[in-house]
Amino acid sequence: MNVLFDVILAQNEPQGEALMKRLEGKSPLFICVIGTTETAKIPGISAAGKNPDLTDYTPSADVELLLLGRCKCISGVPATPEGIPTPALITRSALNLADIPTFVVNSGLKVKPHAPILELGGSPGGDIRTGKAVENVEEVMRRARIAGENFSKMADYLIVGESIPGGTTTALGILLAMGVDARGRVSSSMSNNPHDLKIKTVEAGLKAAGIEFGSLDNNPLKAIECVGDPMVPAFAGLVLGASARIPVLMAGGTQMAAILAVLKSMGNVLDNVAVVTTRWIITDKSSDLKRIVAQIADVPILAANLDFSNSRFEGLRTYEAGVVKEGVGAGGAAVASMLKSKGRITKDVLLEEIEAGYKYLVEV
Amino acid sequence: MNVLFDVILAQNEPQGEALMKRLEGKSPLFICVIGTTETAKIPGISAAGKNPDLTDYTPSADVELLLLGRCKCISGVPATPEGIPTPALITRSALNLADIPTFVVNSGLKVKPHAPILELGGSPGGDIRTGKAVENVEEVMRRARIAGENFSKMADYLIVGESIPGGTTTALGILLAMGVDARGRVSSSMSNNPHDLKIKTVEAGLKAAGIEFGSLDNNPLKAIECVGDPMVPAFAGLVLGASARIPVLMAGGTQMAAILAVLKSMGNVLDNVAVVTTRWIITDKSSDLKRIVAQIADVPILAANLDFSNSRFEGLRTYEAGVVKEGVGAGGAAVASMLKSKGRITKDVLLEEIEAGYKYLVEV
Repeated sequence: MNVLFDVILAQNEPQGEALMKRLEGKSPLFICVIGTTETAKIPGISAAGKNPDLTDYTPSADVELLLLGRCKCISGVPATPEGIPTPALITRSALNLADIPTFVVNSGLKVKPHAPILELGGSPGGDIRTGKAVENVEEVMRRARIAGENFSKMADYLIVGESIPGGTTTALGILLAMGVDARGRVSSSMSNNPHDLKIKTVEAGLKAAGIEFGSLDNNPLKAIECVGDPMVPAFAGLVLGASARIPVLMAGGTQMAAILAVLKSMGNVLDNVAVVTTRWIITDKSSDLKRIVAQIADVPILAANLDFSNSRFEGLRTYEAGVVKEGVGAGGAAVASMLKSKGRITKDVLLEEIEAGYKYLVEV
Repeated sequence: MNVLFDVILAQNEPQGEALMKRLEGKSPLFICVIGTTETAKIPGISAAGKNPDLTDYTPSADVELLLLGRCKCISGVPATPEGIPTPALITRSALNLADIPTFVVNSGLKVKPHAPILELGGSPGGDIRTGKAVENVEEVMRRARIAGENFSKMADYLIVGESIPGGTTTALGILLAMGVDARGRVSSSMSNNPHDLKIKTVEAGLKAAGIEFGSLDNNPLKAIECVGDPMVPAFAGLVLGASARIPVLMAGGTQMAAILAVLKSMGNVLDNVAVVTTRWIITDKSSDLKRIVAQIADVPILAANLDFSNSRFEGLRTYEAGVVKEGVGAGGAAVASMLKSKGRITKDVLLEEIEAGYKYLVEV
């Protein structure tokens, strides 16, 4: 794999490289789509919170960190049960260093942030085991699309990230409903990826909704409604609205595959998007982003070549053991900071800033 | 008064002209701040709705027109009791012609639009006669400031407009509480400006809150809280956040004076703002924007030299009789369309587009 700046070209290298050259020095806008789903409260599904109930606070705390520089709805910062801090620390550092404007979109939240947030009329997601996961899918996507169109007139490209605990399980639900074989291939915020629990959860939802593998291949809105989460229609709508005019970096791990599947099924040709993630995702042995995406479209995959192995903080070094890996658009924000600064911001510059934030926010 | 493009330089001509030259051809962003106040339901106060209760729908219907091209929360478009249509028709035409991106901010609404909207945690405003008009003023302003900072990284300048029925009465409340003599000088959406009713309403509020003329000169947040409306802290926060980096065109009539008073009292030097309105405001015999603003600061006032006297539609010709006059940032959007197009968009080009919209939306 080739490396350009500190970015790994992980799939469709020629298009990925051409895109990076096109975006170098340009002015991006970062958007974080946040939501909650009851699915995250199934014990053992998500590590995006110190305990399952706290997952309701994680997305709002993440974006408070981005917009306010500290969390208000919780003390400290979001962390896994073991105390490993949120990837929003990475995102915040990258956006700050490169002075990238930031907006937050509420796709459906139980707990709202103490910060400005773009509302789309969505509701928090339900437990997918019921087969009724998301309300108002079409309208949320329609409103997101209008916002995406307007954002596309204000920036050279978008980076869209997400924070929704439980999101890889709901992504698996959408992918299976739409006929993309992602069993055992979605990633996890845990070092020990609970594939069996995820598959069992999704299968319960598919059964409750009367869906079989691939039976909603042509009905992405229903797939989201039955076994997805609120983040997906908001994210997909933003991409639909913006990518007609400017490139969109879809910043995340295997959840991005679910969004690609939705977009493709809606007739989008996916010629103005790329998936941007972290090295921890593309080198992960317990998931396979490339193999999921390859079933959908040959879009470029880029990965920020972040390396925390020499960090002076154990909480950051632990990222190298495969905990957390990605989230809050961390990989996309890191890549955008490198592109905007034409390579002045390297992975080492980023780590220094992340460590300063860690010291200030986590070690207090 | 000098005219540049179809823009009247109405006050502080040198600075106004310099600003126009600086912004010519640049990329603006239009933001509309909407809110509601119970004050609008006092009979005879507002013509921004077919009857007082409908004023709750007017701001949301206005921004649906901007973002969706038609209203969803009401049928037709907002209109005065006599059926004269909303100035959002002007705004929509200008933004469309010049392809200007648009965002909507909710400062506190009884009825929400079916469209994406930036939330700041505000609530609808109360009747100012109670002396308790607005909740959560400081927090709304804080969140608006963060949004303004981010918007300022995405555009060369902002145009900020508003839609809040009853807003000139609440503006009078803030101005009097802060020692700006605006009695008999605020404008009105009616051709027959109800100054006595407005003054009586404000005096009831000042009395209920224990405020005298000028006693809150140094406490703008309290002036808003007691006798203002929710739009003001949201609008002021956006200006504070954005004007540190880029110019802000404050698009409206005499309500802009209340916001200037608040900003000045908070220590803002007002060197990166201008008031932009319509010819109908600056030639209005029943109000005096220039004389109110002159008491606060020597900021430039620009006015779109719109002229509907030869329109083929009576509903538009009636604007020339002093009905409606301004709102939804109509004057600011018109001026920005001229600036962005370097004068290609003239008042005649605008009128043609407005008439097309009128025919499509009003005459159906």
